[in-house]
Amino acid sequence: MEMNFQYFVPVHIISGANCVREYASAMRTFGGRVLIVTGKSSAKNGALEDAVYALKQNGQKFTVYDEVPNNPTVASVYKGAEEARRFGAEFIVAIGGGSPMDAAKAIAMLARQEAKEGIFDHPITDDVLPMVHIPTTAGTGSEVTPYAIITNDEKQTKTSISAPSLFPRLAYLDGKYMEDLPQSVTVNTAIDALSHAVEGMLSVRAGNMSDLFAKESIRIILSEYESLRTGHYTLQTRQNLLYGSTLAGMVIANTGTTPVHGMGYSLTYFHGVPHGRANGLLLPAFLKSCLEKSPERTRQIYDALHMTPDAFCKAMDDLLGKREKYDDETLRNYAHRASLNKNVKNCLMYFSEEDLYKVLHQSLG
Amino acid sequence: MEMNFQYFVPVHIISGANCVREYASAMRTFGGRVLIVTGKSSAKNGALEDAVYALKQNGQKFTVYDEVPNNPTVASVYKGAEEARRFGAEFIVAIGGGSPMDAAKAIAMLARQEAKEGIFDHPITDDVLPMVHIPTTAGTGSEVTPYAIITNDEKQTKTSISAPSLFPRLAYLDGKYMEDLPQSVTVNTAIDALSHAVEGMLSVRAGNMSDLFAKESIRIILSEYESLRTGHYTLQTRQNLLYGSTLAGMVIANTGTTPVHGMGYSLTYFHGVPHGRANGLLLPAFLKSCLEKSPERTRQIYDALHMTPDAFCKAMDDLLGKREKYDDETLRNYAHRASLNKNVKNCLMYFSEEDLYKVLHQSLG
Repeated sequence: MEMNFQYFVPVHIISGANCVREYASAMRTFGGRVLIVTGKSSAKNGALEDAVYALKQNGQKFTVYDEVPNNPTVASVYKGAEEARRFGAEFIVAIGGGSPMDAAKAIAMLARQEAKEGIFDHPITDDVLPMVHIPTTAGTGSEVTPYAIITNDEKQTKTSISAPSLFPRLAYLDGKYMEDLPQSVTVNTAIDALSHAVEGMLSVRAGNMSDLFAKESIRIILSEYESLRTGHYTLQTRQNLLYGSTLAGMVIANTGTTPVHGMGYSLTYFHGVPHGRANGLLLPAFLKSCLEKSPERTRQIYDALHMTPDAFCKAMDDLLGKREKYDDETLRNYAHRASLNKNVKNCLMYFSEEDLYKVLHQSLG
Repeated sequence: MEMNFQYFVPVHIISGANCVREYASAMRTFGGRVLIVTGKSSAKNGALEDAVYALKQNGQKFTVYDEVPNNPTVASVYKGAEEARRFGAEFIVAIGGGSPMDAAKAIAMLARQEAKEGIFDHPITDDVLPMVHIPTTAGTGSEVTPYAIITNDEKQTKTSISAPSLFPRLAYLDGKYMEDLPQSVTVNTAIDALSHAVEGMLSVRAGNMSDLFAKESIRIILSEYESLRTGHYTLQTRQNLLYGSTLAGMVIANTGTTPVHGMGYSLTYFHGVPHGRANGLLLPAFLKSCLEKSPERTRQIYDALHMTPDAFCKAMDDLLGKREKYDDETLRNYAHRASLNKNVKNCLMYFSEEDLYKVLHQSLG
């Protein structure tokens, strides 16, 4: 076991049915005025109503900023920050999937910091509005990470900003907000979470504690594999998938991700492939390649998956359906882009640009 | 699985050989002046030297307060707080077993708060000096809990003070500080940690996440059972026991303890039985009694232990050696005292005063 590790997840997690209403008081200490950050559709699942009920119960005043698009833009977070300042928000409640939850972090930071260099180069200080996160998808883990992934048009990719001050203070986990999620979103986000757990085990920063979370996350998500395949979910299934996703978030909060994410960003940026799906398309071939490079460590991952390499490919294919195909020039370009991403250095196994191309080719060629 | 739970452990954990020196910079943000809190013998294992080296590297000024006795007294923490104020300490570095680590929390609080009502009745605010904890025994888990157990002479017991602000900010886990620990201390502290993990699973606040930590803690500690029995330790054994103890601390940080601790405090207060040993003397009979009250849940614990109830009794007996014996009147008194402790209400199974007496009688009669 790897005893050299660091662990830090300073988020108060409250999990369970109706936890937002039942534990409204946990938000009381953060201030009297709240900016609720969400997307146009993110809050249409009861989460906004519950948050509003809770804030009213606490006597807190709020306004809603719901202009966060899918794959949040720089403009949308600056606008949200302006809204926070205008309203005099003392803290933020983020409701949604990865996009609103990530955007909320950038907004909480920009509401207090000027970021003259632009948000991607700004050294983030501790002066950030406190945040309460309410996930309405089970994939990103953003509710327990210090990362915000924002669309970076200048570099034509998605770029992660990160700082300890970007951890939410509080996360409410209630699976009922996912009950009406479309099948495709449920599958893609579950694959995203699974990818986080697996990639966390491939990180140079992996250690005992992150492995503990990663293996449990893998176990729980795959225990719901039949639900994912058939599209039949119970509330318990939803809560399990959410818990698995939060555990995976606690993994990457400490380990970061690998070139799977680096490659996936191009698929999302240039072709609009949903983030989780992008990871899922690449993960099986990537993991097979890891097996050649570091058999011992990679076998631990297949053991956690309880699958052979081929069985894992088949299991993912059954969830993903027909794969996207891209021509060689396109894939070479994405391999090059991924080779420049910092998460190449974060991987236990070295992947050259040529190695990345091979994974892309096997997955999408 | 129990999905209604809360989790909060906002401690930055850094684990591994020589981590204090290697990650000295993690202490840089807490201020320029440091009170080191330790016991007379606690720091004689290289930990104080490493801390001093690290603080010097950071250019931080320090003074040492080493007057924390075993089972810290109220007077000793007031004196430490006076020392902190006199020196103008901006943060605290605690080095030692449970006593210095717990005392440091009370000192960090009293350095900033008056506590006119006395420390046991004072409502603790967030204004507490930041703390860095360096455990030199593997048992208490204090480095990751918000608890400080202080000797309460007025009530003739040990009383826990607790607040979110009493969580250390940073914990360094290096097993090398335990290499010269006497066998009895090693065994007693390991039993303390094991008891935390087991008691956490018996708590009304137990949930998925605390169970995950508890089961892993039990697994790791018992994987070193032969070392504990024979007294042969490697550095890896030491690091494993420390990791198991920290995991168990993360459990009770979220679940609290049970009447095992409540009963044990009398053995420590009136007879000087080491805290971990006190728990170990009582745990097997307590757990057997739980099995009658809630068979299903208790079986999960025996499953985690990979032992039958009788095998667990035997395993603990082999570590504990000859048991203390007390007369009936004494045990009735301790049952009464334990029945008044708040951790009776924290247990999934109801234990009346008579039930507690039976456990005490079976264990020590």
